[in-house]
Amino acid sequence: MENKVLVETSARHVHLTKEHVELLFGAGHELTVKKALSQPGQFACEERVTIVGPKNQIERVSILGPVRKASQVEISLTDARTLGVAAPVRESGDVAGSAGCKIIGPCGELELKEGVIAAKRHIHFTPEDAKNYGVEDKQIVKVKIVSDRTTIFDDVVVRVSPDFKAAMHIDTDESNASCAFGEIYGEIIK
Amino acid sequence: MENKVLVETSARHVHLTKEHVELLFGAGHELTVKKALSQPGQFACEERVTIVGPKNQIERVSILGPVRKASQVEISLTDARTLGVAAPVRESGDVAGSAGCKIIGPCGELELKEGVIAAKRHIHFTPEDAKNYGVEDKQIVKVKIVSDRTTIFDDVVVRVSPDFKAAMHIDTDESNASCAFGEIYGEIIK
Repeated sequence: MENKVLVETSARHVHLTKEHVELLFGAGHELTVKKALSQPGQFACEERVTIVGPKNQIERVSILGPVRKASQVEISLTDARTLGVAAPVRESGDVAGSAGCKIIGPCGELELKEGVIAAKRHIHFTPEDAKNYGVEDKQIVKVKIVSDRTTIFDDVVVRVSPDFKAAMHIDTDESNASCAFGEIYGEIIK
Repeated sequence: MENKVLVETSARHVHLTKEHVELLFGAGHELTVKKALSQPGQFACEERVTIVGPKNQIERVSILGPVRKASQVEISLTDARTLGVAAPVRESGDVAGSAGCKIIGPCGELELKEGVIAAKRHIHFTPEDAKNYGVEDKQIVKVKIVSDRTTIFDDVVVRVSPDFKAAMHIDTDESNASCAFGEIYGEIIK
């Protein structure tokens, strides 16, 4: 049974609704693909925004496309402290009662009431991957990363969808804490 | 046998030689105690400096006293990326061939050729603590932190000295990656 998974680092980024794209970049604007990401259909955009909290702002934050049903800001807890927001650790899409922030684009700005989270570390698997690795959707596993700062991440949630490609995603704090740099694989421990 | 240790987060900071204190803050200047730290005799200072790398600078960085035999800058790897320096993960004092940076104070500036590191996570123990916990100086252990992001840190070095007080030190990336906030204890796993 397989147990090694590619570990990728997600830098801070924003997901936007179609409405918010138009508000920030102008009526009728559509996101411009800069680079395809590992997850099929997902892409980094040429467009950037500024995110603003009570204490500071962070400029040139990436937008990931395509547009979503709800806007969401995924930051590290280092960023959260910089901005002065209390971002909870959440799975993507689970934003009820999370933190808010202001988002500024070249054509407008908006006040996001909620949607600012630190992403819960997770593994993307297809149903076939899940079978090969002996895990199920929503299962919590540990992942060991061997590096200059060998670390075992507990509380890693497995997410299964035919639209995914096998990869574990951690944020920049987690990547720096475990020196998970370059092409690196983690060992899944159940 | 005891196995729980207090986990403290070290934010970025600078240690300076007496010579460098005078260079940055003026001839005859002595560091001003702002707050005692957990390790006996160690203190945070009122004085602050700016550290400058090829890409960016970070302002208002804390100085920890008393003065040392060699100046040293301890940053997170998030900071290292911000500054644009390749800080290695090292034990305090092990700075040969590490990264450099510029340090700016109100009365002068200096070019540190080496001394910029990301601190290797470690536990301070007195000889008596070491006996109680069944560990030795330089031993590598794992420490499990149970939190919203439960994590097992491997590669934690035990350091034993009669001048210490029992505490594990991690940096802000490690703290954020493991939600090691507030008064939190880790479990030592040998």
